[in-house]
Amino acid sequence: MGKGNWLESRKDIKILDCTIRDGGLINNYHFSDEFVKATYNACVDSGIEYMEIGKICSKTIMSEKEYGKFNFSEEKDIRAIVGENNTDLKLAVMADIGRTLKEEILPKKDSVIDMIRVATYIHQIPKALELIEDAHQKGYKTAINIMAISKVFESDLDDALKLLCDSNVDIIYLVDSFGSFYSEQIKELTNKYMKFAKDSGKEVGIHTHNNQQLAYANIIESLILGTSYLDTTICGMGRGAGNCPTELLMTFLKNPKYKLKPMLKFIEEYMVKMQKKENWGYSIPYMITGYLNEHPRSAIKFIDDNRTDFMKFDDELKNI
Amino acid sequence: MGKGNWLESRKDIKILDCTIRDGGLINNYHFSDEFVKATYNACVDSGIEYMEIGKICSKTIMSEKEYGKFNFSEEKDIRAIVGENNTDLKLAVMADIGRTLKEEILPKKDSVIDMIRVATYIHQIPKALELIEDAHQKGYKTAINIMAISKVFESDLDDALKLLCDSNVDIIYLVDSFGSFYSEQIKELTNKYMKFAKDSGKEVGIHTHNNQQLAYANIIESLILGTSYLDTTICGMGRGAGNCPTELLMTFLKNPKYKLKPMLKFIEEYMVKMQKKENWGYSIPYMITGYLNEHPRSAIKFIDDNRTDFMKFDDELKNI
Repeated sequence: MGKGNWLESRKDIKILDCTIRDGGLINNYHFSDEFVKATYNACVDSGIEYMEIGKICSKTIMSEKEYGKFNFSEEKDIRAIVGENNTDLKLAVMADIGRTLKEEILPKKDSVIDMIRVATYIHQIPKALELIEDAHQKGYKTAINIMAISKVFESDLDDALKLLCDSNVDIIYLVDSFGSFYSEQIKELTNKYMKFAKDSGKEVGIHTHNNQQLAYANIIESLILGTSYLDTTICGMGRGAGNCPTELLMTFLKNPKYKLKPMLKFIEEYMVKMQKKENWGYSIPYMITGYLNEHPRSAIKFIDDNRTDFMKFDDELKNI
Repeated sequence: MGKGNWLESRKDIKILDCTIRDGGLINNYHFSDEFVKATYNACVDSGIEYMEIGKICSKTIMSEKEYGKFNFSEEKDIRAIVGENNTDLKLAVMADIGRTLKEEILPKKDSVIDMIRVATYIHQIPKALELIEDAHQKGYKTAINIMAISKVFESDLDDALKLLCDSNVDIIYLVDSFGSFYSEQIKELTNKYMKFAKDSGKEVGIHTHNNQQLAYANIIESLILGTSYLDTTICGMGRGAGNCPTELLMTFLKNPKYKLKPMLKFIEEYMVKMQKKENWGYSIPYMITGYLNEHPRSAIKFIDDNRTDFMKFDDELKNI
């Protein structure tokens, strides 16, 4: 049995729009302030709960020449967009292991950021926990995204989840990095994450990709089983095949707090142009990396190289 | 519990590729013989079970000037593509109520067609049954697609299914005409259709549309619950948002009889060009007709008119 009735609004559900953070992977965060501000306004006006405004990489590690502002998300640059953020929208940023210096993270009282999300591979979890405990001590809500679990042994994942349940992290994310999971796997994994979370008072989130046209379907599958934090991007903007579209999920959720019109307005005013400029979304090369459970980087390169020899690409990935 | 293990091959499962029939709704069946022949070869070589090669409308009712050959699918035109069809691929054609004359349908012994599928709205079922009984008597396998059931009262649908179970039809199709169903509705409807079918020895098929990016997900949902005949089109080619892509479904089904390579070959040789020429696939206007449970014709017009005022379109459909 699913959680909730289709016309009921579950109070635990939060949409976390990561258009800027995940979309920035396409253009190295070279967004105009106007675009970021318009995204922010669309999220505020639509009743979205969280907006992930960028990454917090250190400028001592990644080049300002190569990457735009929201790869670094300095306090002054965020405030230039949101001011004091006197709205109901909460702000999140993503920390990458090895690229974020905890010394550079301000105490929560000096920041408009509400949540720090740590993206980690499973073997980096000890480092991720260090970042999480630091952010927790500083007063932030914290989340962890364990990436690439489709390549991880189940017993190793169980060990990781146990460690996280003993930590101060607030939200544990089920992440389908390669867009390779089918509904039945999402079901089993959601049940696993929910069980760990329930025993330790954590919440569960889900982050999907659209390599096999299942990003939206998998979020629905998972939320019905109890997942609370739902990652989406406007028009599915994100690296490669992209993500679950925010606007689609809004039409599924019947909570009257969500307003579709401001989102449609943003799409017609900004996203139509962005879609002409940047390239993302499902296509055959992503289907191939998806069904083979591989990172989409080879598919991105295949498309960038203007190749259309799909049969050969399928062979290459199988090392034939 | 689902039917079958994910590595087992269910013998009841058949892919029915309707690229030409559903794709023909985009271009009024103005396909070259070369394209139809290449589609046929791709289906044969990939191990697909059925190909729907067109509609069997009467030339006395629809104009040959306006529509290409496979809107009519005359025996000579089919044979020009498939010869005697000495392959494992079976051929289907679709009959539309009011456009097909049963007098024009040859006896099975004189035709290479194996299956006649009747597309019907629920109120036309008496006419559909007349066509089905005629085709059955002539020796064909028969199927019925009841369209637009998302607008039908459940008790009316039950009455229709009862009638069909008492008929000679072989396969009853669950059809999501407006691409408006979510997984939970597909689950309930599949269970309903399966229950009727089981009691009367019929089989169940599913035909989905991608208006909400759920065409593929909904087919997976339904097949796990026991649906046997699965409608797909190559690259999802079909009117509006299109269909579940044949190639995606092939990667999900683990039956070794399916060969992905010939399908990828066809896509790189023919579909890349076709996608530049014709316009189909998910976009915001289809999301809007999908979530509002409306026929996609207004979305098709919106796109043809090069409009991008999505907010106004949403209002128009709600008659605001």
